[in-house]
Amino acid sequence: MINRLVEKIKKTEAPIVVGLDPTMKFVPEHIQKKAFAEYGETLKGAAEAIWQYNKAIIDSIYDLVPAVKPQIAMYEQFGIEGLTAFQKTVDYCKEKDLIVIGDIKRGDIGSTSEAYAVGHLGQVMVGNTMCRGFHEDFVTVNPYLGSDGVKPFIKVCKEEKKGIFVLVKTSNPSSGELQDRLVQTETGTADRPLYEIVGEQVAAWGAECMGETYSYVGAVVGATYPEQGRILRDIMPKAFILVPGYGAQGGKGADLVHFFDRDGLGAIVNSSRGIIAAYQQEQYAGYGGENFADASRAAVLAMKEDIGQALAGRK
Amino acid sequence: MINRLVEKIKKTEAPIVVGLDPTMKFVPEHIQKKAFAEYGETLKGAAEAIWQYNKAIIDSIYDLVPAVKPQIAMYEQFGIEGLTAFQKTVDYCKEKDLIVIGDIKRGDIGSTSEAYAVGHLGQVMVGNTMCRGFHEDFVTVNPYLGSDGVKPFIKVCKEEKKGIFVLVKTSNPSSGELQDRLVQTETGTADRPLYEIVGEQVAAWGAECMGETYSYVGAVVGATYPEQGRILRDIMPKAFILVPGYGAQGGKGADLVHFFDRDGLGAIVNSSRGIIAAYQQEQYAGYGGENFADASRAAVLAMKEDIGQALAGRK
Repeated sequence: MINRLVEKIKKTEAPIVVGLDPTMKFVPEHIQKKAFAEYGETLKGAAEAIWQYNKAIIDSIYDLVPAVKPQIAMYEQFGIEGLTAFQKTVDYCKEKDLIVIGDIKRGDIGSTSEAYAVGHLGQVMVGNTMCRGFHEDFVTVNPYLGSDGVKPFIKVCKEEKKGIFVLVKTSNPSSGELQDRLVQTETGTADRPLYEIVGEQVAAWGAECMGETYSYVGAVVGATYPEQGRILRDIMPKAFILVPGYGAQGGKGADLVHFFDRDGLGAIVNSSRGIIAAYQQEQYAGYGGENFADASRAAVLAMKEDIGQALAGRK
Repeated sequence: MINRLVEKIKKTEAPIVVGLDPTMKFVPEHIQKKAFAEYGETLKGAAEAIWQYNKAIIDSIYDLVPAVKPQIAMYEQFGIEGLTAFQKTVDYCKEKDLIVIGDIKRGDIGSTSEAYAVGHLGQVMVGNTMCRGFHEDFVTVNPYLGSDGVKPFIKVCKEEKKGIFVLVKTSNPSSGELQDRLVQTETGTADRPLYEIVGEQVAAWGAECMGETYSYVGAVVGATYPEQGRILRDIMPKAFILVPGYGAQGGKGADLVHFFDRDGLGAIVNSSRGIIAAYQQEQYAGYGGENFADASRAAVLAMKEDIGQALAGRK
C-alpha cells in the first residue's frame, strides 16, 4: 500500500491528503435541510447529512489527490449512525480508487491493539470465516503504550500489505507538554526530546517491513513544527511523513519543504477544513453554499500550487 | 459520577470493575452455535454471540460489583455490528444500575477530542436537537497529545457530571519505553520518569473538577507496577486510580494495597478474562461451558476476598 501511495502521488503530482472531518457547521444548509426532512434532527439525520456532504466533495476532488483521511471522531460523535457514515465514506473512497487513511489514533496493548488492527486494516475470524469490519488502507496509531501497542498493527500490516502512521510530533499547541520533554539517553544527560526517541522507534519498527522505497510504518509530524520536521526526516529516512496542520492550523507551503526528501517524495500533507469548508472562507465565498464542492476543488488546486512552488523553490 | 462510584464501592464492599472484553475464544460453544445458526458466521453472528455472552455475565454479577469496563476494541473489531453490541452492553449495564467505564483510550486535539467526548460522555447538537451517541459514565483517555487532548473531555465531564481516567502508567511490559523515560525537570537534571509528570498533570486537571472526596479526573496505573502505584498515589491524592493488570496479567491482591488510600478507597481494580472467562481456568473448570456465568460469579467473589484480605492485612 505504501508503494501504491507513492505511485499515486507521482501520478497526481499532489502530495496532498484531504481530511474528511465533517462537522455539522461545515455542512451547507440545503444538505442539512434535506437530510432532516427525511430523518428528522436525529443521529440518523446528521449521519445522512455528513454522508451526502462527503460524497459531493469526493466526487469533486477524487481525480486530483491520491488519498483522503477521514477523522473517525467526527463520525463517532454521532454514535452507530455516524460510524455507518464513516464506513460508507471509506467504501466510497475506495470505489473511487482513493487511498484511505483512517485517522483513528488508536493504541492499546497486545490482543486489544490487535483487535483494533484487524478491525480497521485486517480480517477477523468468526467461526471458520474471515470477515472485515472497517477497511481503511492506513491508520494512525498512538505510541504512548510502547511496542506492545504498535507491533500488533505492524503484524497486520505485513499480512495485509497495509500501513500505519505513528504519532511522533503532533501539530497542536500543547503537543510539547510530553513530546518535547528532554529525556535521558545513553550519554546520561537529558539531551533529546521525547519525539526523537519515538522517531527512532518508528525507524526501527519500519525497517522490519519495507516497501520499495519507503516503509509501511510512517509517522505523523505537524506542519506547525517545521524545524522538528527537518530533524525527524533525518532520523526516519524511510518513513513516509503524514503532515497535518496545513492551512487552518497555520502551516504554510514554505514550512513544509523539510518534511520532504530531495525528490519531493516522503511526505503527504493533510488539509481538512481548508478544503472541505472552503466555501465558508472569504477567498472562495463566491461559490456559495450550493457549490461548496466546487470551492473544495479550487482549494485543492490552490494547495497543490502552493506546495509545488515551495518544493520547486527549494531546488 | 465519581461520588456515585465511591458510594457504590462502599455499598458493595468491592473496589472491583469487571472488564467486559469478549473475544470469540471466550464465548462458550453453545452461544456461538445459536448465534451462527441465526445469523451465520458473519459480523452480525459474532456481535450476537458476544452480546448474549455479556448479558449472561452481567445478569450473574451485577449485584456484586459497582462497575464494568467494556473494552471497545473488542467490539470495534467486528465493525458496525460489533459497536452495536457495545452500545447494547453499555445500555444494559446502566439498566442494571452498574457504572460503565468505556475503555476507549481516545485522545486527539481540540474539536476532535471534543467530538469523542460528546460522542461517549455527552450530547451532540443536530440542528436544534441534542442527541446522544454512546453513553458511558467514564472513559479512558490517552495523554500523548497534551492538555489540548484532555481538556475537551474535562469540559464535557463538568457539564455532564461524568469522569475520565487518564493513562499514566499502563500495565503492559513495554509501557516503560516512553512512560519510564527520565525527563528533565526544573532542577535541570533528568531525575523524574515521564509518568510522574503525567501524574502531576492529572492532579492539576483534576483540581478543577472535584467531587466530594475525589476528582472527576482519575488515572490508569497498572497493577503490575506496585511501586509506581505507591508514588503516583502520593502525587495524585485526589485522583481515583483505575488499576488494570490484576489476575491474568500477573497482578495480585497484595500488590494493590499501595494504590488505595488508608480508608480502602481511591482505587478500583479491573479484572477481565480472569472473570469473564473463569470457566476456562482449571480452578473453575467444574462449572463447564454451560454454566460459564456462575463461574464468573465465583471468580468475582474470590477476587473480592483476595483484595479485601490484602487491604485488611495492611492495617
